[in-house]
Amino acid sequence: MEKFTRNKKKDDQDIVWGIRPVMEAIEAGKTVDRVLIRKQLRGALVNELIALIKDKGIHRQYVPESRLNFLTRKNHQGVVAFMSPIEYHDISEIVDRAFQEGRTPRIVALDGITDVRNLGAIARTAECAGMDAVLIPAKGSAQINADTIKASAGAMMRIPVCKASHFIKELEQLKSSGLSIVSCTEKAESNLYASNLSGPICIVMGSEDMGIQPSVLEMSNERVRIPMSGQTASLNVSVSAGVVIYEMVRQITESVG
Amino acid sequence: MEKFTRNKKKDDQDIVWGIRPVMEAIEAGKTVDRVLIRKQLRGALVNELIALIKDKGIHRQYVPESRLNFLTRKNHQGVVAFMSPIEYHDISEIVDRAFQEGRTPRIVALDGITDVRNLGAIARTAECAGMDAVLIPAKGSAQINADTIKASAGAMMRIPVCKASHFIKELEQLKSSGLSIVSCTEKAESNLYASNLSGPICIVMGSEDMGIQPSVLEMSNERVRIPMSGQTASLNVSVSAGVVIYEMVRQITESVG
Repeated sequence: MEKFTRNKKKDDQDIVWGIRPVMEAIEAGKTVDRVLIRKQLRGALVNELIALIKDKGIHRQYVPESRLNFLTRKNHQGVVAFMSPIEYHDISEIVDRAFQEGRTPRIVALDGITDVRNLGAIARTAECAGMDAVLIPAKGSAQINADTIKASAGAMMRIPVCKASHFIKELEQLKSSGLSIVSCTEKAESNLYASNLSGPICIVMGSEDMGIQPSVLEMSNERVRIPMSGQTASLNVSVSAGVVIYEMVRQITESVG
Repeated sequence: MEKFTRNKKKDDQDIVWGIRPVMEAIEAGKTVDRVLIRKQLRGALVNELIALIKDKGIHRQYVPESRLNFLTRKNHQGVVAFMSPIEYHDISEIVDRAFQEGRTPRIVALDGITDVRNLGAIARTAECAGMDAVLIPAKGSAQINADTIKASAGAMMRIPVCKASHFIKELEQLKSSGLSIVSCTEKAESNLYASNLSGPICIVMGSEDMGIQPSVLEMSNERVRIPMSGQTASLNVSVSAGVVIYEMVRQITESVG
């Protein structure tokens, strides 16, 4: 009974097209992943749409007409929105709720993971470990589509996923809420096994090629390193996340008894 | 200066074709991954080839002519061999050498991992953790090709890989050499963190869909379970392997001091 037209693309992600339908979808509270807008598109209604997009912190991209034509043959009026297969959550609400319920909030934040299989596998690990949420940046992260959900064995539908319009600001917020920001990096001084991971925590993992951005490393409470004995410089990022998250699980279990 | 003709396929794996060239490659000690033989191929030379393949424990497959024609347009005489991009090692030699050098042998055995990315990621983790070898069954394992090596970040070229013609027999052999066979399974009774993983060990991980085969679970010294708190039944297998292998690393580090 959707008011606006939808269409399945081959990657199974829903799209909505047309200026007014996209605005209606956003106003109806539908979760929009990102909006593609034709370059040089002008008009009062477009300005209204852009204001709405900015207000909701939705990621937008300016693209050539041909890109939109590839997505739909219908009259898209220069605007196509990708709908998200999952609902996004508010990270502050999740952390506040955990504290209110007397639980220890535990978050994993992913600084620009670009591979859907890695993103899915990490969400799966976080859900299996009983963590509260996965935090990803609004821009520059792997898309959450059918492949990501498959790689997560469905966990992506069960663990709250939060999008940060300003990744560092969000981490600063978590830090001031009392979470220890623990960044996992090969360049760290301290050994993972010498760190205390049992309290309120936000574990940060970096992107496949660039790792964690310097400003995030700098604001972290701790930087930890997984010990390496071989000649290979690093683990796969979803394996690294598993090692750190499960070291946290071990410490929690041990401290309980 | 190869005596026999080679050809690059799109997956970067070398092939050799023709009955005599394949025999010569095997006799020259080249590492052959598997040999494809046309169904109903008969003849004295073919029988000689099959005897040689059996003797060396090389995996063979009977396929329709069309499959061979797809691989090469040359005169393949009903026989095409896939050459391995890596050399395989002898597991007993590796274990014996470790003991002789006063080191603790540590092996990871993969009971039918079928995804090249998982196989590559596990080899990478094993190499990073300073393990001695990866043991895979001769049949039913993901191929070691350019994609596997890429997923391993090259670790697959650095850690010895061993192929077992009889997987369980090989594990029995390791067990009688003094290695503890530790199988990782969700059905296990004992918690990973309650197990001692610091001695001579062979960690066994199961396939993506079937897990570890019952006979292997049965002959294992220990079956361990990674604790799960969420609704997702299991971790990705390369993440599980990372969690278990790094719990071993932690225990080794702690026991050293």
